[in-house]
Amino acid sequence: MKLTPQQLEQFDREGYLFFPGLFTREETKVLNDAVPELYARREAYNVREKGSDAVRTNFAAHLYSEPFARLARHPRMVQPVVELFGEDVYMHQFKINGKMAFEGDVWQWHQDYGTWLNDDMMPTERAMNVAIFLDDVNEFNGPLMFIPGSHKRGVVDAKHDLSTTSYPLWVVNNELVSKLVERAGGKEGGIVSPQGPAGSMILFHSCLVHASSSNLSPWNRVSVYLSLCAVSNHIRRHKRPEYIAHRDFAPIACLPDDCLLKDYPVDLPWKNGMPASALATSPEPLDQIKEAA
Amino acid sequence: MKLTPQQLEQFDREGYLFFPGLFTREETKVLNDAVPELYARREAYNVREKGSDAVRTNFAAHLYSEPFARLARHPRMVQPVVELFGEDVYMHQFKINGKMAFEGDVWQWHQDYGTWLNDDMMPTERAMNVAIFLDDVNEFNGPLMFIPGSHKRGVVDAKHDLSTTSYPLWVVNNELVSKLVERAGGKEGGIVSPQGPAGSMILFHSCLVHASSSNLSPWNRVSVYLSLCAVSNHIRRHKRPEYIAHRDFAPIACLPDDCLLKDYPVDLPWKNGMPASALATSPEPLDQIKEAA
Repeated sequence: MKLTPQQLEQFDREGYLFFPGLFTREETKVLNDAVPELYARREAYNVREKGSDAVRTNFAAHLYSEPFARLARHPRMVQPVVELFGEDVYMHQFKINGKMAFEGDVWQWHQDYGTWLNDDMMPTERAMNVAIFLDDVNEFNGPLMFIPGSHKRGVVDAKHDLSTTSYPLWVVNNELVSKLVERAGGKEGGIVSPQGPAGSMILFHSCLVHASSSNLSPWNRVSVYLSLCAVSNHIRRHKRPEYIAHRDFAPIACLPDDCLLKDYPVDLPWKNGMPASALATSPEPLDQIKEAA
Repeated sequence: MKLTPQQLEQFDREGYLFFPGLFTREETKVLNDAVPELYARREAYNVREKGSDAVRTNFAAHLYSEPFARLARHPRMVQPVVELFGEDVYMHQFKINGKMAFEGDVWQWHQDYGTWLNDDMMPTERAMNVAIFLDDVNEFNGPLMFIPGSHKRGVVDAKHDLSTTSYPLWVVNNELVSKLVERAGGKEGGIVSPQGPAGSMILFHSCLVHASSSNLSPWNRVSVYLSLCAVSNHIRRHKRPEYIAHRDFAPIACLPDDCLLKDYPVDLPWKNGMPASALATSPEPLDQIKEAA
């Protein structure tokens, strides 16, 4: 899979690329079938919705679940990002977001890179968000919404919202969202929402302002969100636990294209539980960085 | 405006009829311009969103606001309902729902007639919901969602939800919603969401199961929701305050078709405030009904 000049131009202009049905139903099913058992676990890496037992987000499944470990090394996902950055990438964050039928709550308008910069001391925006649909996505089950072109603003002001949902988020204020939407075309394209079958993939810029509504429909909208960071751009601080912001900066080595359907061996370092070190955090920048400075 | 046989058949089958752009931009503007002043009032008839100052729903504006008093007598709205019922109608409920930009919260899946039956002792389903868009409605500003054909089930079991939002609602359980959506076509039409410009109107059956999502967009979605009840079907109990469930069962006398643009005189009984009697309630059925029984 090689991106076309049109795609490269579109990514630069809009801040995202949509690949409907990139993975087959059969491939997606392997992943989706593994979710209930992961969500049932009572572990720190499962964050549940406010006032509900439904999982909002699961972290780091690629370290303890074979199907997701294979997805984390899938060439159809990794190679376009390597191509866009012109550099190897490592896995900065790996989430399976629930947005479950009837229970899935909103994600307020936010950028991801702001958090990575402020909390993780990631030097630049050279990290890519990847969303892979494990369920069909339609207008009723709380799809992702983007403000096209909003990534061009770089990191914008944000407020730490600790109360709206169960997961704290640096949220862009309403006035700025209004301005960005207006500039992107207002009611004519100022908000877009890529929708399509399970197996679809979105690549989106780490500064693209995005949100999603609640899911009142009877249909789950489980998605995998991965953040692939250019290796040279690795984080400089471990202020957040390792299951949220990963500390292994080794380049991803891809498996063959059929890896979701065949049992290629994968390493599962957290198969028997998270190590205590994964919860250890520090407000100080990494030693080697301090020494190099 | 006369309904066609196709429209009558569609209403019977689907439980709703959509009239995009029935009122002009000019007519809608007259109404929308009157909303901020009404919403600013600190009165019992303004219910605000949970944890926010944004108005979720305003009651009974037709009793104290000239533009809305005229809308309540508009032939384009009233006559199709009279035609469907074959009988004069009175105003049972009159709401201006906010669903304000960024602030508008969900309305859970519910039917309206269940409440009217249980609280107000309305004898039959011969009351019609009318929604009139005061803002453009799109997939991003929390549009109404219907389950087509769900009205055929009559009144279904519901649970009184006092906690999800600021307004208590008799809510249909998730399992039944799933079944109704599946029966209506699942992902192929099991949920529908009429969207269109300000001035559009929807008529929908009082047993049609409906909901709406939160509004994360920068666009208000203010709508007028009226409930027109066949005069012979008037409520038999005043368990709810008069500003919520009206007690004047006189047939609506329509104004001319241009009434939103010309200053026809209208009666505004609550112009100088709500009378104390409007807050008086009783769990007993109306005396005259008891005598007649």
